[in-house]
Amino acid sequence: MSLTQLLGIDVPIIQAPMAGAQGSALAIAVSKTGALGSLPCAMLNADALRAELTTIRALTKQPFNVNFFCHTQPAIDIEKEQAWRAMLTRYFIEYDLDADTVVPGPARLPFNEEAAAVLAEFQPAAVSFHFGLPSDALLAKVRSWDAKIISTATTVAEAVWLEQHGADAVIAQGWEAGGHRGNFLSDELLSGSVGNQLSTLALVPQIVDAVKIPVIAAGGIADARGINAAMRLGAAGVQIGTAYLLCNEATISDVYRRALKSESARSTAVTNVFTGRPARGIVNRMIKEMGPINFAAPAFPLANSAITPLRVKAEAQGSGDFSPLWAGQNVSGCREISAAELTYEFARGVSI
Amino acid sequence: MSLTQLLGIDVPIIQAPMAGAQGSALAIAVSKTGALGSLPCAMLNADALRAELTTIRALTKQPFNVNFFCHTQPAIDIEKEQAWRAMLTRYFIEYDLDADTVVPGPARLPFNEEAAAVLAEFQPAAVSFHFGLPSDALLAKVRSWDAKIISTATTVAEAVWLEQHGADAVIAQGWEAGGHRGNFLSDELLSGSVGNQLSTLALVPQIVDAVKIPVIAAGGIADARGINAAMRLGAAGVQIGTAYLLCNEATISDVYRRALKSESARSTAVTNVFTGRPARGIVNRMIKEMGPINFAAPAFPLANSAITPLRVKAEAQGSGDFSPLWAGQNVSGCREISAAELTYEFARGVSI
Repeated sequence: MSLTQLLGIDVPIIQAPMAGAQGSALAIAVSKTGALGSLPCAMLNADALRAELTTIRALTKQPFNVNFFCHTQPAIDIEKEQAWRAMLTRYFIEYDLDADTVVPGPARLPFNEEAAAVLAEFQPAAVSFHFGLPSDALLAKVRSWDAKIISTATTVAEAVWLEQHGADAVIAQGWEAGGHRGNFLSDELLSGSVGNQLSTLALVPQIVDAVKIPVIAAGGIADARGINAAMRLGAAGVQIGTAYLLCNEATISDVYRRALKSESARSTAVTNVFTGRPARGIVNRMIKEMGPINFAAPAFPLANSAITPLRVKAEAQGSGDFSPLWAGQNVSGCREISAAELTYEFARGVSI
Repeated sequence: MSLTQLLGIDVPIIQAPMAGAQGSALAIAVSKTGALGSLPCAMLNADALRAELTTIRALTKQPFNVNFFCHTQPAIDIEKEQAWRAMLTRYFIEYDLDADTVVPGPARLPFNEEAAAVLAEFQPAAVSFHFGLPSDALLAKVRSWDAKIISTATTVAEAVWLEQHGADAVIAQGWEAGGHRGNFLSDELLSGSVGNQLSTLALVPQIVDAVKIPVIAAGGIADARGINAAMRLGAAGVQIGTAYLLCNEATISDVYRRALKSESARSTAVTNVFTGRPARGIVNRMIKEMGPINFAAPAFPLANSAITPLRVKAEAQGSGDFSPLWAGQNVSGCREISAAELTYEFARGVSI
């Protein structure tokens, strides 16, 4: 079955869910074009999730995707947390902040019963996961309304694992992709330095040869050329994120928007200093001075707490020095137009 | 002008020059098919170069490419050299070797007058360079017989520089490519960790948009799918290396051959511990324990000296622990067949 048949869409393009950078508006705009819009849910509590889903259902009948993280929430390691804050002391002093009064940053909860119950009210056509898959019990709930289950692989082994555990399609996430690496079998920190940094071009055909389910290419795809190239590699479709970041419906900060439009956006790195897990973003002061990979950073998503007050105060002063400026290696597709217009441009250029 | 017209070849495929892994036999086999075979010359002195070129001219009238490094040969830094050997002491003890009697390893000389004089006798159709371009005076000599000049870019800025300095075509080398990174404007060590690790999929379309000369995609291309994908990105042709490593004409060691055929070949890293410059190879003990990037390694190509006796003795015992096992991120195309057969398979699958 083709990806478009599987998901009930017209063109094999999925807008990548980007937590913190977009909400329902972007997802709706994309889904209305016949591509698959995605709502990132990792930072939404049940009420916020319900509100967003209500909005989507009110404004489009088209299929859409909801995306969740399915990490294991770690216990806070007080010693590690304190050591990490000590390493950030000079920044707290510089910004006249008190490191001892840091409150937890925005929560990133793994997919859970509560979220599954809210989803059941709205029955989205597709549910995608990052960092593997949730428990069989949770997956069964999602399957109860026949939602298609999608998850991310950064290696051939992860793709095979996902197929064996019931995924209906797999996203082959190349090293060049922006945001969090989806790796869940390989070591999350070492994947940033040794061995498992497979690019989209190298990864997609190897996964296509290893699984029977449709493979969705992600990472470095910024225009129709990238889409057509991915299809030639054997991908059934693509997932595109970075290119949507400057769209009218994106909700990114002015600091982030400026960075994406600047020359600095050509230089990105995979770093764990913002959340504790490797994720690709534009190289800024925090990455240069504390990263890109720092083994002292607390476990995902706890590293986020210490840096949040720094980020907030720096952004208020117009600086992105401490902001996670997630972006992939190809920002050339970013356009300050509506998400619908951008999606139609992609679709028009697809020649399979 | 198309790449095939520019180079006088039938299919837009260049066999990547791989110093230490192949000689004239592989280049001849590929050139005879109508693709462009390449002779790696970085480790050949004038006599060896003349011998190889004589062989090529005797066996084929087809165009071929010769490849040179054009780095600046560094002075030996005695202190750095000694510190590096001290860091390797445990390995010398393990292999019962005397670190004080290390002799210089295989030389890698930059392109020079002597090499240019030998080339003039044979007038190869194409001369490709790694690490930028040689001096204007040397380039003028190469141009005297109308050889096409090709060099490698790892960033858009490098591609623009090469075009401005007279390259006839540019190789867009993605992060996934095996062997030495061709970077010459960006910091050679930091390129391994922060910022400039652009993949082929991300790099090719950005370079295509920035230059007018033909762009040759390199990195992660292992089969016709990869070639077709690269052409969809706007590349005028491709350069393929890793896939040729198991061909009958390749001259790699048994240890290297076994590594390529093993599961370990799925895990590669960009490392400077073998030569002093970042290059991608299969992760082995040396990379795990001393790298992948080690700022103590002597400057390229001097780091090669200290490790050579270790490599030689380990290989004699059947171990590749200290061997540079250069390979890209996609070894799935490696085939134990003749290079001609492999090239014809590529060519048959090309559908532009």
